[in-house]
Amino acid sequence: MSSSSPALVSVDWGTSAFRARLAAADGAILEAVEAEVGAVGLASGAHEAFVETQIGDWMRRFPGLPIVMSGMVGSRQGWVEAPYVRCPAGAAEIAAAMATVPATRLARVVVVPGLSARDARGAPDVMRGEETQILGALGATGHADGLFVLPGTHSKWARVEAGRIVDFATFMTGEVFAALKDHTLLGRLMAPATDASAADGFARGLAASAALERPGDLLHAVFMTRTLGLFDEAPANALADYLSGLLIGAEILAGAQGAREAVVVGSPALTARYRAAGEALGVAFAPAPNNCATLGQIALLRQAGEL
Amino acid sequence: MSSSSPALVSVDWGTSAFRARLAAADGAILEAVEAEVGAVGLASGAHEAFVETQIGDWMRRFPGLPIVMSGMVGSRQGWVEAPYVRCPAGAAEIAAAMATVPATRLARVVVVPGLSARDARGAPDVMRGEETQILGALGATGHADGLFVLPGTHSKWARVEAGRIVDFATFMTGEVFAALKDHTLLGRLMAPATDASAADGFARGLAASAALERPGDLLHAVFMTRTLGLFDEAPANALADYLSGLLIGAEILAGAQGAREAVVVGSPALTARYRAAGEALGVAFAPAPNNCATLGQIALLRQAGEL
Repeated sequence: MSSSSPALVSVDWGTSAFRARLAAADGAILEAVEAEVGAVGLASGAHEAFVETQIGDWMRRFPGLPIVMSGMVGSRQGWVEAPYVRCPAGAAEIAAAMATVPATRLARVVVVPGLSARDARGAPDVMRGEETQILGALGATGHADGLFVLPGTHSKWARVEAGRIVDFATFMTGEVFAALKDHTLLGRLMAPATDASAADGFARGLAASAALERPGDLLHAVFMTRTLGLFDEAPANALADYLSGLLIGAEILAGAQGAREAVVVGSPALTARYRAAGEALGVAFAPAPNNCATLGQIALLRQAGEL
Repeated sequence: MSSSSPALVSVDWGTSAFRARLAAADGAILEAVEAEVGAVGLASGAHEAFVETQIGDWMRRFPGLPIVMSGMVGSRQGWVEAPYVRCPAGAAEIAAAMATVPATRLARVVVVPGLSARDARGAPDVMRGEETQILGALGATGHADGLFVLPGTHSKWARVEAGRIVDFATFMTGEVFAALKDHTLLGRLMAPATDASAADGFARGLAASAALERPGDLLHAVFMTRTLGLFDEAPANALADYLSGLLIGAEILAGAQGAREAVVVGSPALTARYRAAGEALGVAFAPAPNNCATLGQIALLRQAGEL
């Protein structure tokens, strides 16, 4: 049963944007505000003043609501540092490491910590914000085990067992795509896509990703973005999606490591793109609802006895 | 026996630089001029006028010398198009496809064609300029078979059999490195290297490249450039070389495809870097002399009966 009374202010504050949602205890979003202001590199005191300009109205209308924030706001360069919690970690470990913003004119503000993990060679990996979405997706999908994928600039692939994130890996797919498209010769032949050319280019990139053998083959296959255009074997308006399909396909095949299903958490557009890619590559992506971040924060507040 | 009388003007004219060498028939470089002017996108007539400013003095002192040019000067956007010759191709096929610049006030100017190849999936690949260096390296090293590697912005790995280039693949290693370093968050923690930090970072990157399993793992491993710095597990002045070692290592392992030796053609600094990487990864790189481009052009002029 959905309640319409506000129970918390749910904030996702990363390096480039501030997103606040006035939410009910069941995760229903009642009101929302967004601003293109990142949490990193603000002057001392500026975080609080900025938050007051954004959600001061809610604070006056509903005094005392807890404010919970996920994302880079909890990094060393953010508002208050909530140090990385090492995997394996579930709601209990994450809630226990939440940081409280000291001395604020606002109601109680808690900041969710990020997670760290080690790969097989001992190299470190990190996430901030995605752990909250995964906790929300766990409850929303009813899955307590499996792969949870958060595609984007830095895609995260997390392995969950018994409701805890046991390890994860970051793939720089989105940022690598943007850097190659905008800052190498690969972008020079590209033209704006149509729906049909985008689908065709994406499918060809996915097929190429499945044919790669060695890791370094990726450094070769990206060059085909140029040569397919140069030889008129792909239209200019399919080239960006070819490159995108190649990189996303390589990410999925490496991230899934042979698994045939995963939960995907993200915007509808990105979720649809990964589901299409997964269909071509034999990985079934189950979508999670849009409000996973808020659902995860509610789970954390409950775990901490604050809701 | 080295002759000191000039026999040709050997030109490498790519997208960013013009390099001309007054050379003897044995490939000895007698004089050289260079300018940061690319061959692509000049107005009609501008190529000839520019060349006259650069080598007019040689033309007056040694009238009638043939001028032979390799590189993007032979592309559709260059001075005169010398269409790609399809592999397999050796000196005979390449010389037969050389283009002559029409109606010039200069002596006879010939332009070397590029090569094209198809990979196992039928995707096209191209080179322009490197084919000439490979022909030169063939004569200079006495190898008529094997792998020839030209590292750089777009590294080329060519397989040679009986003196002919049978196929090749491009790896965008240098350009991907620059795009990731300068246009993603990976560059943010990097500090200028010392000799020791560069060697340490490069070795760690090479080791990481050897541990990659799936092609998409590369999209994950590049992110370690950030996390190793974030966790103070690599010094800031080792991070750029870590990324370089990771990418060069992945290139070598994919390009060599299990081969244990190759000839490397390039600048002394880049050749040394690939030899060090090859030593760590089990690929012995034999160096070729510096004047391979000129040696290749001499072989082509001889093949064409013009020298």
